[in-house]
Formats: sequence, C-alpha cells, structure tokens
Amino acid sequence: LPGSWKMLTVAVCVTLLGYLQAQELQGHVSIILLGATGDLAKKYLWQGLFQLYLDEAGKGHSFSFHGAALTAPKQGQELMTKALESLSCPQDVTPSRCVELKGQFLRLSQYRQLKTPKDYQTLSKDIEAQVQREGLREAGRIFYFSVPPFAYADIARNINSSCRPGPGAWLRVVLEKPFGHDHLSAQQLATELGSFFQEEEMYRVDHYLGKQVVAQILPFRDQNRQVLDGLWNRHHVERVEVIMKETVDAEGRTSFYEEYGVIRDTLQNHLTEILTLVAMELPPNVSSSEAVLRHKLQAFQALRGLQKGSAVLGQYQTYSGQVRRELQKPDSFHSLTPTFAAVLVHVDNLRWEGVPFILMSGKALDERVGYVRVLFKNRAFCVQSERHWASEQCQCLPRQIIFHIGHGELGHPAILVSRNLFRPSLPTQTWREVQDRPGLRLFGRPLSDYYAYSPVGEQDAYSILLSHIFHRRKESFITTENLLASWVFWTPLLDSLAREAPRLYPAGAESGHLLDLEFSGGQLFFSQQQPEQLVPGPGSAPRPSDFQVLRATYRESPLVSAWPEELISKLAEDIEATAVQAVRRFGKFHLALSGGSSPIALFQQLATGHFGFPWAHTHLWLADERCVPLSDPESNFQGLQAHLLQHVRVPYYNIHPMPVHLHQRLCAEEDQGAQTYAREISALVTNSSFDLVLLGMGTDGHTASLFPQSPAGLDGEQLVVLTESPFRPHQRMSLSLPLINRAKKVAVLVMGRRKREIAMLVSRVGHEPKKWPISGVLPRSGQLVWYMDFEAFLG
Amino acid sequence: LPGSWKMLTVAVCVTLLGYLQAQELQGHVSIILLGATGDLAKKYLWQGLFQLYLDEAGKGHSFSFHGAALTAPKQGQELMTKALESLSCPQDVTPSRCVELKGQFLRLSQYRQLKTPKDYQTLSKDIEAQVQREGLREAGRIFYFSVPPFAYADIARNINSSCRPGPGAWLRVVLEKPFGHDHLSAQQLATELGSFFQEEEMYRVDHYLGKQVVAQILPFRDQNRQVLDGLWNRHHVERVEVIMKETVDAEGRTSFYEEYGVIRDTLQNHLTEILTLVAMELPPNVSSSEAVLRHKLQAFQALRGLQKGSAVLGQYQTYSGQVRRELQKPDSFHSLTPTFAAVLVHVDNLRWEGVPFILMSGKALDERVGYVRVLFKNRAFCVQSERHWASEQCQCLPRQIIFHIGHGELGHPAILVSRNLFRPSLPTQTWREVQDRPGLRLFGRPLSDYYAYSPVGEQDAYSILLSHIFHRRKESFITTENLLASWVFWTPLLDSLAREAPRLYPAGAESGHLLDLEFSGGQLFFSQQQPEQLVPGPGSAPRPSDFQVLRATYRESPLVSAWPEELISKLAEDIEATAVQAVRRFGKFHLALSGGSSPIALFQQLATGHFGFPWAHTHLWLADERCVPLSDPESNFQGLQAHLLQHVRVPYYNIHPMPVHLHQRLCAEEDQGAQTYAREISALVTNSSFDLVLLGMGTDGHTASLFPQSPAGLDGEQLVVLTESPFRPHQRMSLSLPLINRAKKVAVLVMGRRKREIAMLVSRVGHEPKKWPISGVLPRSGQLVWYMDFEAFLG
Repeated sequence: LPGSWKMLTVAVCVTLLGYLQAQELQGHVSIILLGATGDLAKKYLWQGLFQLYLDEAGKGHSFSFHGAALTAPKQGQELMTKALESLSCPQDVTPSRCVELKGQFLRLSQYRQLKTPKDYQTLSKDIEAQVQREGLREAGRIFYFSVPPFAYADIARNINSSCRPGPGAWLRVVLEKPFGHDHLSAQQLATELGSFFQEEEMYRVDHYLGKQVVAQILPFRDQNRQVLDGLWNRHHVERVEVIMKETVDAEGRTSFYEEYGVIRDTLQNHLTEILTLVAMELPPNVSSSEAVLRHKLQAFQALRGLQKGSAVLGQYQTYSGQVRRELQKPDSFHSLTPTFAAVLVHVDNLRWEGVPFILMSGKALDERVGYVRVLFKNRAFCVQSERHWASEQCQCLPRQIIFHIGHGELGHPAILVSRNLFRPSLPTQTWREVQDRPGLRLFGRPLSDYYAYSPVGEQDAYSILLSHIFHRRKESFITTENLLASWVFWTPLLDSLAREAPRLYPAGAESGHLLDLEFSGGQLFFSQQQPEQLVPGPGSAPRPSDFQVLRATYRESPLVSAWPEELISKLAEDIEATAVQAVRRFGKFHLALSGGSSPIALFQQLATGHFGFPWAHTHLWLADERCVPLSDPESNFQGLQAHLLQHVRVPYYNIHPMPVHLHQRLCAEEDQGAQTYAREISALVTNSSFDLVLLGMGTDGHTASLFPQSPAGLDGEQLVVLTESPFRPHQRMSLSLPLINRAKKVAVLVMGRRKREIAMLVSRVGHEPKKWPISGVLPRSGQLVWYMDFEAFLG
Repeated sequence: LPGSWKMLTVAVCVTLLGYLQAQELQGHVSIILLGATGDLAKKYLWQGLFQLYLDEAGKGHSFSFHGAALTAPKQGQELMTKALESLSCPQDVTPSRCVELKGQFLRLSQYRQLKTPKDYQTLSKDIEAQVQREGLREAGRIFYFSVPPFAYADIARNINSSCRPGPGAWLRVVLEKPFGHDHLSAQQLATELGSFFQEEEMYRVDHYLGKQVVAQILPFRDQNRQVLDGLWNRHHVERVEVIMKETVDAEGRTSFYEEYGVIRDTLQNHLTEILTLVAMELPPNVSSSEAVLRHKLQAFQALRGLQKGSAVLGQYQTYSGQVRRELQKPDSFHSLTPTFAAVLVHVDNLRWEGVPFILMSGKALDERVGYVRVLFKNRAFCVQSERHWASEQCQCLPRQIIFHIGHGELGHPAILVSRNLFRPSLPTQTWREVQDRPGLRLFGRPLSDYYAYSPVGEQDAYSILLSHIFHRRKESFITTENLLASWVFWTPLLDSLAREAPRLYPAGAESGHLLDLEFSGGQLFFSQQQPEQLVPGPGSAPRPSDFQVLRATYRESPLVSAWPEELISKLAEDIEATAVQAVRRFGKFHLALSGGSSPIALFQQLATGHFGFPWAHTHLWLADERCVPLSDPESNFQGLQAHLLQHVRVPYYNIHPMPVHLHQRLCAEEDQGAQTYAREISALVTNSSFDLVLLGMGTDGHTASLFPQSPAGLDGEQLVVLTESPFRPHQRMSLSLPLINRAKKVAVLVMGRRKREIAMLVSRVGHEPKKWPISGVLPRSGQLVWYMDFEAFLG
C-alpha cells in the first residue's frame, strides 16, 4: 500500500476501535461499599465515590452505589444518609448545582444489610433486575472491603459464590490493609483470597500510592528522564530519605498498635512502596501497568537482606501507660512495641550499590510531615567566598529533589528541585509553581532555592485510587507477588527485633537529639548513647564492654578470650601485626584461611578497619574447601570473595583458591588437584611454611577438613589431601596436619555456645588427632594461639 | 639492679647528658645572611635573626651576625643599618629595654661585601679571630642564601672551599626557593649543591612550614590522636581542600611569573607540603625529624600520578597585558601562563583511597585566605526538624576541621573544629580560644559552631624557621629526596599542560561562578562551560561534538567512526547490548579482550557508566598476553585488572587470564599453557565461539599477538598458540585466527593518528593474513565491526 493509504487505514481503524471500546464499556456499574458506615467510608470513601460519579457519569455508564454493613437496614440507611449529606462538591461547582448533583448521587445510593449468603444472592438479583430495567448490559461490579481483615474470608466466599456478575462483566474487589502480620500470615491470607478471586480481580490499596506527589514519582522520573538518566545512580546520589513523621500518638488505637507496631503499620507498606518507586529501573513505558509492576518486583529482588543492625527502634514514653489503660494490663507491663523506627536499606545493584536509603517513621514526633528526599553528592568546589554564591548557578549548595508528600512547614504537597540542579518538567495543567514565602526554609535552604511545584487542585488519595480501580490501572495497587516480596524483605527483621527494647523518647520536640541516627558499615545506630535504662530490657545480660579481654592458656598454648566483638577485633589486630611484620621482613605475607561462619565477622572487620594491612603483598590460601564449584554458595572461597576480596585490593594473582574443580570435575583423584595445590604452595611459600594459618574447630573436634576417624591428612608426607566429611558435601580438600604444623603461626578461632562442650572436652585430651583432629594442631617451630569467645569458653 | 637504683642511675645519666650537651653547644655561632639588603631580608630575615638572638643569647652562646651582599662595604653598611633600625621588639618588652636590646644586636652585626673567594677566606679568618678573642670554641656557622638561584653555585663553592668552620663545629646553609623548574632542573641543582654540602647541612626553606597553623598540623594530629585515629581516613573524610587565594596579581613580577606560573609558584611547594602533613601516616613520635621526613616521603609515594584531566587552569584577564607591558612583548602576544590552578589529587593507599584532595591557588581572586579544610562525611539523619537542632549535639550539621592559615574573614591564624565533632586538645600556653564574633560565618556555619583556637602570640614564619634551623629541627625543611619526589609528582602534569590555554577570568568577585569546579571519575573540570573563546587557543581543531558518529563500511564490514570519546561510548554501548542479549539468551556472556592502550579508555567507560552490564554473568578472556608474570605492569591482564576488574563485580571464577606463568616458568612449551587455555575455552564456551572478541590493529598490521611473517596461529587446528613478537617482550600467547573467526562478533578498535597509514593500507589489501594478520579476521558465521576514530580513519 502507498504511504497515504496506509495512514488512512490506520486512522479508520483507530476510530473504529475507539467506538467499539466505548460500546464495550457502556453499561451498568455497581459499586458495593462494604463497611459503608465505618470511619474510612465516612471520611474518604463516599467522597471518593461521589467524585467518581461526577467524573464518569456523563460518559455513557450508569451507576448504582450500594452501601453495605451488618447493621439492620433502617438504622444503616440513616447512618449512611447522614454520611452522604456531608459530601462536598469540587470548588468550581455552584452551590445550587451541588445540591442537584448530590441529589442525583443520593438517588443512586442505597443501604443494604449484607450478612448471610442470601443477602448476597438478593443483591446480585437486584443488580440484574436494575440492569434489565435500564435496558443496558452489566459492565461490572466493584466490591470495596472497608471492613476488618477477619471478615474478609466470609465476604469473599459470599461474593464468589453468590454475587459474581454474569459472563462479559467484570468483578473487582478492593482490599484494605493490613494484609497479614508477617510473611506466613500474608501468604495464608493471599492463598485464601486466591481461592475466591483471580489475581486480576483484586485491588489491594496502599492509599499512599494515591497521594498526588507519590503518584507523580514515576511520571516525574519519566518526564525528566533525559536529565535524570545521568543522575539517578550511585555515582551521583548521596542518599535517599523516605520519611513519615506524625505528631499524633497511638492513644485510642493501642489494641491495633500493640499488635502491629510502626514497621508493620507504615514501613512495610507505605515507605517500602515509595522506596521501590524511587529505586526501580524506569520502564520505557511508564504507563504500562504490567511493566511498572514487573520493574517494581525486580527492585524488591535487589534489596539487600536486613539484619538486626539495620534498624533502630523507639517508643514514646507514655505509650506503655496508654496500653496498660486501654488494654487493662497490670502496672508491671511494659510494651516492646516500637512507635518509631528507622531502617537503613541498601539496594544491591549497580545503580544503587552503596547508596543508603533511610526509611523512618514515628508517632509523637515534633512535626507531621512526609517526604522523599534524594540528596545528590556534593562534588563541587566554589572558588569565590560564600558571600558571592548565587543559588541558581552554585554547584556548592545542596542539590536535592524532594517529593514533599504533605504537611510540614510547607503545608501542602509539592515537588522541589534545587535550582542548581535543573528546571524540572511537570504537566503544566495539573501542577503549578509555588509562590515564594520569605523566611520559609526547607531542608536547609530557603524555598527560593528550589523550583517548587504543587498540584493545581489538591485531590484526595482515595478519589485517585477509586478512579484507577475504575480504569483498571493496576500499577497503583499491591499485587500478591509484590505483597509477598515485601513481607519476605521485612519478616526476618521483625523476627530479629521482636524482643528488642525500643529506646524511650519524650513526645514532640522534647526528644531533642535522642533519636538522631548515624549509619556506617551497613549498620544504623543512635548517635547518642542510651542515656539511662528507663525500662529493664528483657535480656539484661552483661554487655561486652563490661568485660576485659581475658588472657590465659588452653592446651598449654596462649588463649585470648573475650566477647565476640572484642575477640574478632583482637584477632584482626593480631593478623594485621603479623602481616606487617612478615611483609617488612620477607616482602610478602602468606595467609591460609578457613571457611565457615566465624571467619566472616573477621573478614568484615579486616575489610573495613585495617588501613595498614599490606593487602597488595598478601597471598591468600585456603585451609580447606568443599568439593563444589568455586561459585557455589557452599564454597569456602565464595565466603572469602563476598566478605573480603570484594572490599580490599588483593591482586588477582595473589589469590589461591583450592583447585577442587578441574576439567569440569569435582575433586577427581586423577586430576591431581591436591598435588597441584601442594606444588603451588611449595613454589611460592618458603619451606611451605605459611606465615599464618587460621583454623576453626567443629563440634566433633574436626579442623580444616580433617575429620575424626578418617586417616587422610593426619600424618604422612602429603601437604594437601582429599578427605571425606560426615556432612554434606562429603568430599573435601584440606591442608594436611603436617603442613599446618609447619606454619609460623596458627590461630584457632572458636565461637558460640554450641562449641562449649567440645571446647571443654578438647581442653582435657592429649595428642589424639585420630579422635580429635584439632588435638593434632601444634606447630613444630611456630606458635599456636587460641581465640575463644566467652560463650565457647565459659558457656 | 633493683628498681629504685635503676631509676637513680637513669636520672644521673640524664643530668650528665644535659650538662655535656650544654657544654657541647656552648660556643660562638656566626650567622651570615647573604643578600642582606634585599627585600626578604628587610621584611623578615633580620627580624627573625633579632628574635633568634633574643631567644638564644642568654643561653650560653655568643653570636655574630654578618650581613653580606655584592654591594660595596660603605653603601652596604648604610643600607643594612637602616634595615636594622626598623626592627621591633616583642610586645612585652618596654621601649627603653627595646632600645638597649637593639643596640646589643646592632653591635654584633656588621656588613661585609662577599664577592670573591678571598672575601670568603677573610670572613672565615675574621670569625676564627673573633672566637679566639672571646676565648670560646666555635659552635657553628649558618649561611642564609637570600639570593637569586643563579648565584647559588658560586656562593656554595666559595663556602665549601673557603668558609667551612673547623672540625667540631657545624655548617648549615639555608636555601630559598625556587628549587628548580621541573624534575630535571631540580635534580641538576640538587646534584650541584650536593657536591658542596652534605644533605644534613642543607636547610631548604618552604616558609609555609613555618606558619604557625601549618607547623601545628602534626602536633594537632598527635595531641588529638585518640579521636582522630578513628576519623582520619576514607571511611570518614569526605574531602580535603588545601587552598591559597590571593587578591594581588602578578603586576611588577611578571618576569618571574611568566617563567613559573601558579603551579610552580605555590602548588608544587606550599600546598603539596601541607597535603603531605595531612595525608601522611602519623609517626608514633612526631618530634622525631627522621620519622616525620620518612613518613612524608611515603605519602609522596602514595600519590596517584596526575593526568591532564586532574587539573584546570585560569589566568586573570589583564595578565597578558601586564606581561606585554613589563616584558616588551608585541600586541599579538598572549601568555599561556596560569595564574589560577586547581588540581584533584588522590592518595592511593587504604587510608585515603577515593578521598579527593583539592589543591587550589590563584591570584586576583575575591579574597586573600589560606586554609586546609577536612570535611567529614555526613552519615547522620536528624529526626527533629532543623529548627530544633543544637550545634554541639547535632550530627547533621557539617563536621569539619579547618587549619586556617591566615587572613580571610577571620583575619588571623586559627584552628577550627566543628562542635559536633570533638573538643580538640591544643597546648594551652600557646593557643587560646577565639572570642565569638556574631555575624561571622566560616565555611557555611557561624563561628559559634566551632571550637576555635588561635595562637596567643602571632609569630612570623621566618622567626620560627630560624629557630628550627638553630635547633637542627630538620622536619620543617625540604630534604633533597622530598624535593625530588615533589617534582616527580608535578612534572608530568606541567608537561602535559604546557600548551593548554587557561580560562580567562575577571579579577576579584567579578569572576562569579566562572572558576567553580566539579570532579568526578578522577577528573576535575569547570562547572560552567567556557562562555566564549576570548583568546584563540593554540589548537583550534574542531571539537568532538561538532561531528556526528559516522557510519560506513571498511573492508566490506560495518565501520563506526567518531571522535575518540564518542567512539568509546558507542563501543561500550554496543558491548553492553551484546552482553545483555547474550545473558538473556544463554545465561552468560563470553568476552575476549585485547591489551594495549586503546581498550583502557573503554574499560574506564564500562567501569563507570554501565549500570545494566551483567558483570555477574560475564566471563572475561584474554585475546592475547605477553609472557610476563600476570602482576607485571607489561601484562595485558594487569591493565584489565587496574582499569576494569577493580571497579566492577566480576566473580573471581569468571576471570580467565592466560596461563603464561606455570611452574614458575614463562610460556615454556612443555607446560602446555596454550593447550590448557584452549581446553578451558572448549569446556566453558559453547562451540568455542566467543560472544564477542575485541581486537586492535598494530601499525604493522598485527592483531591479538598474531604477527606478520610468523606462521603460528594463522591457520590450523590450534585454538591458542605461542607466538613471537618483533617487539619486547618477544614471547606471546594468543588466540589463533581460526578461533577468533569462530566468534559470534568481532570488534576491531583502531585509534590515533599513528594508525592512519596502516588503516589506509589495510583498506586496500585482500585476504593476506601472512603479511597483514588483521586481514585474516573474518568471522565465519559471525559479524565483524570496525571502530575507528577520526584520526585513524580520516588522518
């Protein structure tokens, strides 16, 4: 076809398609609000439905609104009518027109009691009858669950069995949080709902996603893609803060709050959702729900697992008293529920590696405000003195983008971009520049330092979300996958913090700097020491700092014993000192390391604290290895790679993994891996005498991969041997005892209560390597030092 | 010996030693000031000598001061007496006592003409006679060279041959900069001086080291060691600024300035010295000159080499006019001498890795000020709104330590430490707290935000240095090693910038943000684009951005041609796209890389810009390797390691260096390295078909390590071969042409004017791999793409 013909055909088809779509959509829509007389309904949902009616009624659909609850019809109708009377019209509607519109809406709305399966059947019949009366086909039904979660299952069952629309019409059910209490409960709930509804039928609301500024994050990233493409990454972003501060406390809601706490109440949902909107890779087409949801899920998968040290918790001082009063608890009751939490999140991909994301939320704080702040790195130097700096051109002033969700000193939603960054592009019809308010400072700078935009008309989150539900825009809702991914992320932290005593803080500005945070090395902590223990915590065990490092002997060799942290520090120091000395004397340092969990803390310590460590001259060897590919998570080498090699600069050619994987086989005798490693050691290590060998001790008395009752490597000429472990993977490669005993220094690290018994036992046995291989460790002309933590040594 | 006896013995010995030292020191000291009537002498040196006399005369020594110059005796004496009359006494001396003291000093001071060897002999005899008259022994002689450098050699020769003191007395010669113009001239000068004086006899002055605040840097680090130990490193320091701004310009001094420029005038000496004081490892004993000098030298060795992109240059607009006037240059003359320079320095050790040190100095700027600013990282989040922040406790306010050398808005030397950091310890007798001056802001914060200390009595740098010379405190002076290390560091930059046109700037505050800097990826650049070309630069070649990327064919394969930067970007993009596609389809990406200089820019581009690159699934192979150990700087692998592997996360086991070094031998046939590599390829790479092979082209038409007239690897079955290069190192390992031609894609990168001829030639030849190995590259079922920059392609 010639070009112009093609164009014409396309135009015709588009028109036809639009007509067909309009035809298809035209019909009757029933909206059933379950919990129609509840707080949420009265405050937001009826108003949102009225807005939906105003927006959509003229476009060919007919509507009916069914308020439903357990209340008897008469009383329910009265309550509902009262709620509807307080509806307000948009600003541009005249009062008389408003009365008219409200009248129309009221006529389309009726209350009905929904309790029994029969009630649902009746509802369904009534809707069908109405559709027939109107001479339309049915377009679809929306059920809005504004009810407590325990009621979900029953309602869902009734809808599914008795109230689904006929073929060709859609069903949408709208669910309100909480969606479970942890991963397991969320999964159970999801499975249950999944037995009644298709995934595409469910709309889980996180009303934060309906807030105007939050809803603008992706469009903003899209519309300013050209500038942000270069900036939105670890090279330019210093940190991201996702903040929700409240002044109210939990009074009157403690029965709910006691069960949930701040992390489940706001971090797991609102703040995490916002985080993913900021962190996710921007899909080429941000208006594709499917692409947005997929990228969001990928962002979840990139989140680094949280550890206890990732979070700090607080509780406002009067909370426990409120709980005691409201839940009739005894005077001795102290709640551990946090009302304040801050969490340090890392996104482990190349875009965000190393960029701290701080999520913080709390009640009874000094101000009410919600925002996302993207602070850019300051890598400018201004030659002129500060007096001459001009905010638009000066790269030395802070550069930040703030999605100001609401409240705060500004008092309304806004998007702020530092003027020295770029002039953002926003839809001009719906966003306008904010007037300067002299004296107002936001995030360290006067308002005039920002390009600041706010929505032309403020819209309620629920109105926006109801419109999205109506238009099947699923990207503003929480899919089951998304929900479970979020719980997978949060549940381990919640578990590990379950018995932690939160720091108590006075309400409002009184808390001063008590809750201020600092982060380093992936950990988050309060800047100030705990001023005093106001409530005795559940575990009032002595703190590590209460003890000195203990020096003694064990099996006639020096013993260093301390709490784990001190012990690791001491060992790291000793290794560094040995390394420095070896490099000074011989130009290099040969270190053989064991696998397992205890050395990981040591690796981390060495990776972060030791500036003088002569890594460039250090050779790293393995004391033992499992016969798995080096890249297997089970491989000892893999632990070394992840926790040490990645952070320090050991030249590639100084790294000596054990050759357990040759010719695509694992530890085959004929590949002579053990002999190859032995030859490499002989070639590079003078006298095959390592400067330091770090060993552990198993609960069965094994060390390296030398196991009891298994003769290989306990004596003889071989330097490196293949052995059999009683545990999987059974095949191992190990330095032999004779080789270990040639070392100039051997350190044995033993940590944890699990090692208590074997430590006791081994303290008493003589030289019995066949029964307890560890007892055969005794360097011929070197030094042996035991490093045991108090739990292993003292129980 | 029992303890108390030991103590007593020690005490006796210390007393005896003190007595002996005093005895040894007692005697006559002659100080000869060469250039006694010059500017420096009049302004600082006579005053410094007077101060030395006041401090030391009462301690048993006798002194004589000899002003010397080329001027005839009578006129010289007059000039000198005039200079001496304007000497001032310390504040605590009464006017009458001052007259008395000045009288004493004048009586000890005499002028003499020092021109001929005979003059020096006479001086020596006169000194000996005076010593005898006084009945003392001679302690030593200090010669202060306050003369232009061209006069050094003659004076030094005369001192050495005719004016050395007798045995048992010391000689000290004090030298003033400039100490050469670059590394070569500095070395020549040092060698010449070294033929007359011992290293220990020479005191090279950098008067910045005598400034009170600069002299306090090491003592400050020492006295606050406990706090700083944890803070003084890359984990905590955001950046360090070493700044010297002047308001004066070079008028009247352009004959000197034209030859030196700002880098030689201030950066190579003052700022570099300060940098080393900040960056060096603190010796356990900071009062050991030897230890300080050794650590300083180590700091020099850790400096990363500077590149053209490490610096930016400026020149105040009226400078060229001043030069034309003062040096009688024609109107067409435009100077390239910088009067402003900023340099980004990196210290490549574990303490400072990644911390930017910014050195900046310039004339005709908006204010006169000198300081070192250590800015700490901000890793705090304050929960309360800013209104409630308290400067002492708030970790969110900037945390910095400033060594304020002088001038600026503060107006005097001071050491400032942010109150939220720590309260510093300073010697209370000589340093006192600065009074707050409301309204004064320094480095973004009011003065009240700092603990601020300044010296109780301001002392001139020369007084301090003269005292150090007298007391043989060599750590305040530039040793020969130190001087040469500094020139080794600066000379390559000076060479590479020699023909760069500096950016012109208006004097004073007028320059606005024109000189503001930003740094990223190790480069420093002006924040603002050059506004207009005010002077035509020497190379007015078209800029890369003037051209589009050109697409064409070359040898019947696609050709991409562009300016180097664009070309590298395009190639990096193409590689990433290929990688993403391969990983999507096969789960991994096999990339074989060549060595050489062109790929380094590519590695850097890949390391910094490409967030989506699937490194975790990429296998890296070498296309060829030199038969040197992998750690050799000549090794291709070493380039890969330094410029790529260090910055991205490729798992250890995905990295496949060529096994050129087996059994401690290089490329021995019997070690079968080539066969081993071939087997590894066969095992891991499906069909031995790499996803992408990156090649280069030598000026002789070689590619990988396949050379003309050398048959190995050009055909046959072998996948990997040992070859002979006409260049050193001769032995190579290389993928063979048949293996290369199995690749799915081959990219040939050709850059630079040097490649012009061969590029032209190869465009015309057919398939002649024996003459031009590159002509044999033609993947059997893959794609070949040529990437040539405009210089190689268009000449």
